[in-house]
Amino acid sequence: MKFNNKGIVISPKSKIGNNVRIGDNTTIYDNVIIEDNTIISNNCVIGEPINDYYYNDLYANPETKIGKNSIIRSHSILYAGSTFGDNFSTGHRVTIRENSIFGNNCRVGTLCDIQGEVKFGQYCWLHSNVHIGQDSKIGDFVFIYPYVVLTNDPHPPSNICNGPEIGNFSQIAVGTVILPGIKIGAHCLIGAQSLVGKDVDDYQLVAGNPAKALKDVRDLKSRETGESHYPWPKNFERGMPWENIGFDKWKKENGYD
Amino acid sequence: MKFNNKGIVISPKSKIGNNVRIGDNTTIYDNVIIEDNTIISNNCVIGEPINDYYYNDLYANPETKIGKNSIIRSHSILYAGSTFGDNFSTGHRVTIRENSIFGNNCRVGTLCDIQGEVKFGQYCWLHSNVHIGQDSKIGDFVFIYPYVVLTNDPHPPSNICNGPEIGNFSQIAVGTVILPGIKIGAHCLIGAQSLVGKDVDDYQLVAGNPAKALKDVRDLKSRETGESHYPWPKNFERGMPWENIGFDKWKKENGYD
Amino acid sequence: MKFNNKGIVISPKSKIGNNVRIGDNTTIYDNVIIEDNTIISNNCVIGEPINDYYYNDLYANPETKIGKNSIIRSHSILYAGSTFGDNFSTGHRVTIRENSIFGNNCRVGTLCDIQGEVKFGQYCWLHSNVHIGQDSKIGDFVFIYPYVVLTNDPHPPSNICNGPEIGNFSQIAVGTVILPGIKIGAHCLIGAQSLVGKDVDDYQLVAGNPAKALKDVRDLKSRETGESHYPWPKNFERGMPWENIGFDKWKKENGYD
Repeated sequence: MKFNNKGIVISPKSKIGNNVRIGDNTTIYDNVIIEDNTIISNNCVIGEPINDYYYNDLYANPETKIGKNSIIRSHSILYAGSTFGDNFSTGHRVTIRENSIFGNNCRVGTLCDIQGEVKFGQYCWLHSNVHIGQDSKIGDFVFIYPYVVLTNDPHPPSNICNGPEIGNFSQIAVGTVILPGIKIGAHCLIGAQSLVGKDVDDYQLVAGNPAKALKDVRDLKSRETGESHYPWPKNFERGMPWENIGFDKWKKENGYD
Repeated sequence: MKFNNKGIVISPKSKIGNNVRIGDNTTIYDNVIIEDNTIISNNCVIGEPINDYYYNDLYANPETKIGKNSIIRSHSILYAGSTFGDNFSTGHRVTIRENSIFGNNCRVGTLCDIQGEVKFGQYCWLHSNVHIGQDSKIGDFVFIYPYVVLTNDPHPPSNICNGPEIGNFSQIAVGTVILPGIKIGAHCLIGAQSLVGKDVDDYQLVAGNPAKALKDVRDLKSRETGESHYPWPKNFERGMPWENIGFDKWKKENGYD
Repeated sequence: MKFNNKGIVISPKSKIGNNVRIGDNTTIYDNVIIEDNTIISNNCVIGEPINDYYYNDLYANPETKIGKNSIIRSHSILYAGSTFGDNFSTGHRVTIRENSIFGNNCRVGTLCDIQGEVKFGQYCWLHSNVHIGQDSKIGDFVFIYPYVVLTNDPHPPSNICNGPEIGNFSQIAVGTVILPGIKIGAHCLIGAQSLVGKDVDDYQLVAGNPAKALKDVRDLKSRETGESHYPWPKNFERGMPWENIGFDKWKKENGYD
């Protein structure tokens, strides 16, 4: 019932792949490329023009590309000029601004607000309602939980825009704020509701307001097992490329530390 | 003007009660039951199919039921498999995932994100932008304020899903995070922006990051009156079933402590 | 492509100025006034009726006014009874409830939730996902960042509604909660993720949970310049009325301290 071909507007300047399904009341603007087997659900806007569109008659929409086997859930707005890898998915009412780059296998949850000019590696999973400021750089296999904010202006309001950097495999728990320009290493765990104002070394558990380094995540005992759950890729495989292979073997073959 | 019968799609496999009004551009999927006198405003989706719908030709939508005299405000998405009691209401752009159960007289504010597989008692009032993780269990007369998050994964990312439990009459103030598996008793008050990582006994005031038990709520003096506002049902009746009866009399007749 | 005149419903009791563009699937209710050169994008609701509309046959929609040269981005809902100055802009999916007043040149970001009965001066810029409780009073040139909440009930739930007051030129950083009735002076900087429970004097830097006054913002050294960025209007001009004039000269001519 979702695909009734009602109220759909598709620019003749877009390229729609094979077996792409587009939901009712969705608009696809100029210079959008949607690759094979992708689903765009109802009431979405793909290639939303930037502000000039409204005021400049010579405006040309920059290219927007969504990789194959992706699913964009309803009411999402993806601005023009961004690139999304294969197997990309969004929840509902996601907003992603212009000139953002996502690697393959990324997921962006309901109500996330990606401010544009950001870079994500592969397998980044953003839960609901994450806010990513401009100029943020996020590695591979980074999971970010609800109401996390990555900020970029050290002296608001200023003309400085200096987003954080998050290393591979790091996890940022709910409600945490990362201050401008902060560098978080690989395999870190940032506790819920932390305010992170200092750089974080690899494998650190950091928590609090203000956040402090508490211990090495490999020394963090699970209440269930008595052993550390971290580095988590050793203990979590669902949907990961090391599923049924094991993380240690996979990482050697794929050049990760 | 909101009910022009334009762009509405209603599955023939749904059951729509008497005097139900449905707004423009709303979609009602298979196996939805909407009881009498309920209003579904414009641009809603009721019985949103779960992920299998897109990929499995044999998919059958689970039953979704909305009780009588309810109002669902515009742009809300209620997934299939959930049950909503009578007099249910939502704000705008609410998302409620599958297999959630709400008792009678619940309210869910604008932008709330209910992740599914949760259980609410009666008269739960969620203000705007509350995030409820899967497996949460919430009692009766629980009010939750904006940007509160109930979490469920103690070692993110893991395969554990262990949501919090909130007792009857408890109040969770803005911006608070409840950590996985935490049990909060009855008649508690959790202060704004708390990080709650330990169980909370009945009648406790808890606040801070990390949250600490500060005092019995019955000893919390109001600046206005010099007496305690808590237990709040003694001093707040608007919309409550003890309105014009008094809480003490009502609770005896209704089996609450 | 955004303006195809499809699915638009405009009440004959509204007044639409010259050169106003209205996007697809937008609804304009009774007694809305839209001034010249304003853009209302797609899927918006302007003059959303308050609750009585659904249940009272004699309901009359209060007047809603949007000033000239404004832009309302898609999926926004502006309730009836509010007034928006000239050059007003919103992001996507904004909700603004009834009887709110905005001065000229205000901006309200994506997903903001303004609860109604609030008053903003001129040049207030709200970033994404700001929550403003009823009865809040905000001065001129106040910038508020994501996930900030202004609250109004000191003893939830009660019948008291006592919103905060924010002075001219103050900045409220991400994730901060302002407790009910708190008064924040002019030129203050409230740090990220603060919980503000005491009044704040002019020019104070305040931060923490609970928030404490840390220093005069004029003594806050920038890492870049070694000098204070504050009062920020001396160092930030983009979009401000003192652009190319200088703040000191402008403020004398315009009666600001």
